[in-house]
This record gives sequence, C-alpha cells and structure tokens, in this order.
Amino acid sequence: MTISRLAILALALAAHALPAGADPAAGRKLAQQKCATCHGIDGLARMPIAPHLAGENEIYIQTQLKAFRTGKRESEMMSVIAKTLSDEQIVDVADWYASIKITVTMPP
Amino acid sequence: MTISRLAILALALAAHALPAGADPAAGRKLAQQKCATCHGIDGLARMPIAPHLAGENEIYIQTQLKAFRTGKRESEMMSVIAKTLSDEQIVDVADWYASIKITVTMPP
Repeated sequence: MTISRLAILALALAAHALPAGADPAAGRKLAQQKCATCHGIDGLARMPIAPHLAGENEIYIQTQLKAFRTGKRESEMMSVIAKTLSDEQIVDVADWYASIKITVTMPP
Repeated sequence: MTISRLAILALALAAHALPAGADPAAGRKLAQQKCATCHGIDGLARMPIAPHLAGENEIYIQTQLKAFRTGKRESEMMSVIAKTLSDEQIVDVADWYASIKITVTMPP
C-alpha cells in the first residue's frame, strides 16, 4: 500500500468516526421547534420533570432519544416526540445541546 | 380555631412540603460513594454514557432513581445501584446534585 493510499484510508476512517451529518444549525432549529418548551433552547429545563440537556454528551442524548423511540425508555412526552425524529435529526439535536458549555459551582 | 393553632397548622403544612429528611451533607457523602465515579461529585459526567447531574431538579433525579429501582427504567449500572438506595437516600443524593449551581454559554 502506498503512502497516499494510506492517507486516503486514514481520512476515510476519520470521517467515519464523526457523527454522520451532524449539523449544529439544523440541530438548533430543531431544538427550538421540538425541545425548547421543556428543555430550553439553552438546555436548562423549564419544568421539574424535564432534565437539563446543556452540555450533555451527544452519545448520551442520542442513546436516550433512540431508547424513547423504540420504547425501551418510556415518558409521556418523549415517547411521542422521539418517534418523530430521524436518525439524522437525533444526531443534529444531540450535537446542539452537546455544544453548549456549562460551568458548575458546588455549595461551600 | 385560635391564631396559635392556625400557626401550628401552617408550620405543619410547610414542613410537609419539604422533602422528608433532605440532608445535603449526607447526600454529598453518598454521592461520593455511589455516584461520583460516573457522574462526578460536581455532577459533571466522567463518561459518555452517563448524564451530567449538576443542577438537575431534585424531582427529576428522585423520579429517575425510583424508576431504576422499580425497573420502569433500565440501565446496566443504575438498575443495580438504585436498588441499594432507600427513599431517604434518594432524597438526600438528589438534594446534593440539585444544590450545584450551573451556568451555560451557548455557541455564537
């Protein structure tokens, strides 16, 4: 295998490691439409039964959305909403919330 | 009913509204023992499959821990750990993570 072929292989592997089609702008728009009422566009929950999503790892968000979609995890709200999301939309919206930076202050 | 009896009734109702036995110090100690390896003592997750818990609403944390305990929600780790927690410990540990302040910065 030549060096250039190795380089192409390395690039292909690197591209594969990225979430397919992650689009932060699309994710933000989708979050505004489908998530923000309960979770906030900034990922800070607006009601006690919803979790914050700000800065949450994208793998965690994707896993939970897929669990709601298949019925593995149940929630009156999320079981309905997750069924409306494609794989690509799940990647995008997870990417949006994961991209929010959070800082914490512990009680004294 | 006299004024003082009304005052006692009001105090009793107020006390009832507080989580029974919420003890932040006990919650912090318990979090250190049972939660911090994955969720951090500061509520910032140490691995992609665990969510951040910093500043999460105590009602949300209590609800999820009880769902793991009954089997309504399943997770390889949490289904085991939640079964070791009493109602009082769930209140305490939820209180600890809820007491952490978070601030968020959205991407430009």
